[in-house]
Amino acid sequence: MVPIMESNRLDQRVCGRPLGDCLEIIERFHGWQAPGLVLGLFMVDMASEFIGKGVEADAIVETRHCLPDAIQLFTPCTVGNGWMKILDWDKFALSLYDRWTKQGVRVWLDLDKAARYTNLYKWYMRLIPKKALPLPVLLDTILEAGQDVLSSECIKLTQFHKREKKTDVLVCPICNEAFKADQGNICFSCQGGGYYESIAFHAAAAFGNSR
Amino acid sequence: MVPIMESNRLDQRVCGRPLGDCLEIIERFHGWQAPGLVLGLFMVDMASEFIGKGVEADAIVETRHCLPDAIQLFTPCTVGNGWMKILDWDKFALSLYDRWTKQGVRVWLDLDKAARYTNLYKWYMRLIPKKALPLPVLLDTILEAGQDVLSSECIKLTQFHKREKKTDVLVCPICNEAFKADQGNICFSCQGGGYYESIAFHAAAAFGNSR
Repeated sequence: MVPIMESNRLDQRVCGRPLGDCLEIIERFHGWQAPGLVLGLFMVDMASEFIGKGVEADAIVETRHCLPDAIQLFTPCTVGNGWMKILDWDKFALSLYDRWTKQGVRVWLDLDKAARYTNLYKWYMRLIPKKALPLPVLLDTILEAGQDVLSSECIKLTQFHKREKKTDVLVCPICNEAFKADQGNICFSCQGGGYYESIAFHAAAAFGNSR
Repeated sequence: MVPIMESNRLDQRVCGRPLGDCLEIIERFHGWQAPGLVLGLFMVDMASEFIGKGVEADAIVETRHCLPDAIQLFTPCTVGNGWMKILDWDKFALSLYDRWTKQGVRVWLDLDKAARYTNLYKWYMRLIPKKALPLPVLLDTILEAGQDVLSSECIKLTQFHKREKKTDVLVCPICNEAFKADQGNICFSCQGGGYYESIAFHAAAAFGNSR
């Protein structure tokens, strides 16, 4: 049990739930209470408050680290249902927007505000080795900061707002699997773009003790 | 209540849980019992059985539709923790592999086998309008089929297996946000690649009744 769990902050409601429950949900899904995800929880909370309950919102997230999981856990948007798009820019920011009007809100980690929380700032800017900043200490700073290190602005989407429809499928004459028609007559994998080679079963049979 | 919920198949264990619980988990996360996700549940089940419990497995998924959510819900791999990579090929296939030996298993929807389940085949190949095949009927076919429409092979990863580390961050002199250093001296968004324009608060204030 980390010190954080004794904090009475855990009763605070975030994203409609007690913070303690949110942290459990995060750990179950993500594998651990990653600081970026806990910070992301407050970002989703801020954006959701702004958008309001009556709005069907899609999401854009500007990094593939941690933050997509905060959106997936605390909004209806997931990568698999197509309501969340991920931009690999490593900017710690997310937007929720009304899918009909394309208006919404962008929330980001504001470095000027973050500078007031030394642990958080040093962690985010990678100015401190992991060992020098134990996770419970960092998490405690993040919980203390909450929305206080975030900024937001109202936005209107100019691109990436289209819901991408499934395209036509073809059956690849080589592997006999269905694939997206834009790859040509045979699938990208059979064109040589694949990521694996087939191996015999006996070579793979020792999985359990393969390390 | 859809007919499917009365099926005694719901007691069957899939991915270590009663099928009924899995369907609830799917609906809560994804928004509905999407057929692709239910089929994906059986794919994850098959791949996990093969890999075994003692293996730390990463995932690759060959479509961004539905299937990533099956992996995120029923394995420890998520998009945000970096253990799952998504290839946008629209092939209904996934791989789980030992992150140390790079050996694993690929499971895919086998069209030859699927052809024996008319509803499933017609749905997947988009040969039937949605209205002509009600969701409960399709789901019942998918539950009936289970692993019977899947094939698998042992594989060794040849690419995409690297865990991508976070790269250096810079602070953008225009927006004052941190960003991934490979974008140049200013962030991609401030270079003109952004997806939004800022709007005044009053324009966005009517969110709740904006449709």
